[in-house]
Amino acid sequence: MTKILADLETPCVVIDIDRVEANLKRGQAAADALGVALRPHIKTHKIPRFALRQVELGAVGITVQKLGEAETMADAGLDDLFLPYNIIGTTKLDRLVALNDRLNLKVTADSPDTVAGYAQRLANSAKPLVVLVECDTGLGRCGVQTAAQALALARHIALSPGLQFGGLMTYPAAGKVAESDHWLADAVALLTEAGFDCPVVSGGNTPDMFRLNKSVVTEIRPGTYIYFDRGQVSLGAASFEDCALSVLTTVVSRPTANRIVIDAGSKSLTSDLFGLVGFGVVMDNTAVSVTSLSEEHGVIELAEPSDAPRVGDRIRIIPNHACPVSNLHDQVHLISGNEWVETITVAARGRTD
Amino acid sequence: MTKILADLETPCVVIDIDRVEANLKRGQAAADALGVALRPHIKTHKIPRFALRQVELGAVGITVQKLGEAETMADAGLDDLFLPYNIIGTTKLDRLVALNDRLNLKVTADSPDTVAGYAQRLANSAKPLVVLVECDTGLGRCGVQTAAQALALARHIALSPGLQFGGLMTYPAAGKVAESDHWLADAVALLTEAGFDCPVVSGGNTPDMFRLNKSVVTEIRPGTYIYFDRGQVSLGAASFEDCALSVLTTVVSRPTANRIVIDAGSKSLTSDLFGLVGFGVVMDNTAVSVTSLSEEHGVIELAEPSDAPRVGDRIRIIPNHACPVSNLHDQVHLISGNEWVETITVAARGRTD
Repeated sequence: MTKILADLETPCVVIDIDRVEANLKRGQAAADALGVALRPHIKTHKIPRFALRQVELGAVGITVQKLGEAETMADAGLDDLFLPYNIIGTTKLDRLVALNDRLNLKVTADSPDTVAGYAQRLANSAKPLVVLVECDTGLGRCGVQTAAQALALARHIALSPGLQFGGLMTYPAAGKVAESDHWLADAVALLTEAGFDCPVVSGGNTPDMFRLNKSVVTEIRPGTYIYFDRGQVSLGAASFEDCALSVLTTVVSRPTANRIVIDAGSKSLTSDLFGLVGFGVVMDNTAVSVTSLSEEHGVIELAEPSDAPRVGDRIRIIPNHACPVSNLHDQVHLISGNEWVETITVAARGRTD
Repeated sequence: MTKILADLETPCVVIDIDRVEANLKRGQAAADALGVALRPHIKTHKIPRFALRQVELGAVGITVQKLGEAETMADAGLDDLFLPYNIIGTTKLDRLVALNDRLNLKVTADSPDTVAGYAQRLANSAKPLVVLVECDTGLGRCGVQTAAQALALARHIALSPGLQFGGLMTYPAAGKVAESDHWLADAVALLTEAGFDCPVVSGGNTPDMFRLNKSVVTEIRPGTYIYFDRGQVSLGAASFEDCALSVLTTVVSRPTANRIVIDAGSKSLTSDLFGLVGFGVVMDNTAVSVTSLSEEHGVIELAEPSDAPRVGDRIRIIPNHACPVSNLHDQVHLISGNEWVETITVAARGRTD
């Protein structure tokens, strides 16, 4: 007998594989049209088979955010990884070198301290470590602050035995891609003037991948485009009909005619607001959002009293932000339409270090 | 050689076992002083050995929020469980009955629909299922809305073959324990008048456990008192010196003299604000909070420029809310002072259904 959505234990994450495939193809086509390399960030799905499919469709490799994610993906056969993070500390540097010896790896640095750590560990390595300079082009997180600092750090990398300067990397603030491009263009000009080749200029996120103008950026690293989510819809990157990840829930209580309580709380949906009001929307009626959350309950307050839905009915929620939802669940169910296809492990879930 | 904090891979959760022991004893003493039974909620720690210790110190049993948590705790030998949740659906009812056959179990209902599900499944069971009526005494989540509804549902339970009315249960809104007590007293009076015995009136959370006045409540279910957190400190339930759970992080970037970036983001600290500003505080300087988070980065903006801390230094963060932090980590490190004692599995982590 065919297993359908109604047979799944709730709350759980369901992934529409037809939407995934369409989203992946649309993303690759967008990168191709722009003439930039696509290096998807796997933090959104944390699932090796999806990473392999992204590469199969044309991605030059993948992006991971922590060593643990890199190790999981390497074990699954991914062999071209970018780890845009300052890797600090003896044990982590050992793990970094082990990965570098095993596959094509790039990493970032934004300070002489980070570069010194790499250089000390790599000085006698047969294979150099490729290091990109992380640039803060407006987000206000990691990164060198000026083009002059980028040049100074590039020089520091190039002069360090065992290291190779690999280019520039940024995570642009959402909606500020023009400012980010301008910053990077200045830095590339300064590097070129100083005689530095800048083989990779890596930028880009999901909302900007569909409206990027040709710039100095040679590679983009969107993550969420595989699933999309309410946040991406609000940024204009997709419609709700594109959203491939949802949380299947059961109505467990109807305390009043206006209040619905579902069995998914922050342990399933996360408390990420993403600048929005409410914690996700009802898939069949996206005007209705989850009003409040505790760990194991979600509360939906209806504007008008209604008998529907009833206790025991099921509701799918499109979360505000898909990536941390993936990190909460050991497994996800792949579906096609209303039919269950397969249950798979989120292999890189919880790889925080 | 003794392993110390500096040897642990970051980000990671460290639990000060001396503070845990002191907190557990203080909590039990508070319940004893009030003359109420203590039934700690294990959602905060999700670790069987701590649940067993809570019972050893005098707790009458434990509270769990989902069947999966109940199953994990039952496997570890806990034999008196309260599951204050509407259990809906065939598979879940089968799991519920299996637990009921195995140990002392109580569950809740807040609607005739939920009671009907229990009654249908338990009608021919040798052992009755004890069902408490969940009351919404001001929180605005699950629960019957009036004392009259509580009486009607109690009657429905008592008349259902296989079910036994076990009393009333509420989760009081923080700071509104007096209103909650008043609501419950009215309901108990109505039940008594109608000839119903009300063996258990279960309420109570961590902030209120230290200032409860004697009321109709016979049992309290605090969770966070084992660890405390910034939220509990802000509510006056503890001081920062009581906080037993912290997230150990490494400074990975100092992009400016005012900005510190640590390697713990929402994947380690959660994005729970708990009504506060910032996402946790620095343990050694609790006036400083984590300004913003992305999944793998935390940003601390200093009011005054400073060279300290430097890249590679370590910082411990006391999170806003300890419970969801436990749910993010497969393992935690137990420490005593600065020394590592043991690394243990968070056995009930991710048991969302």
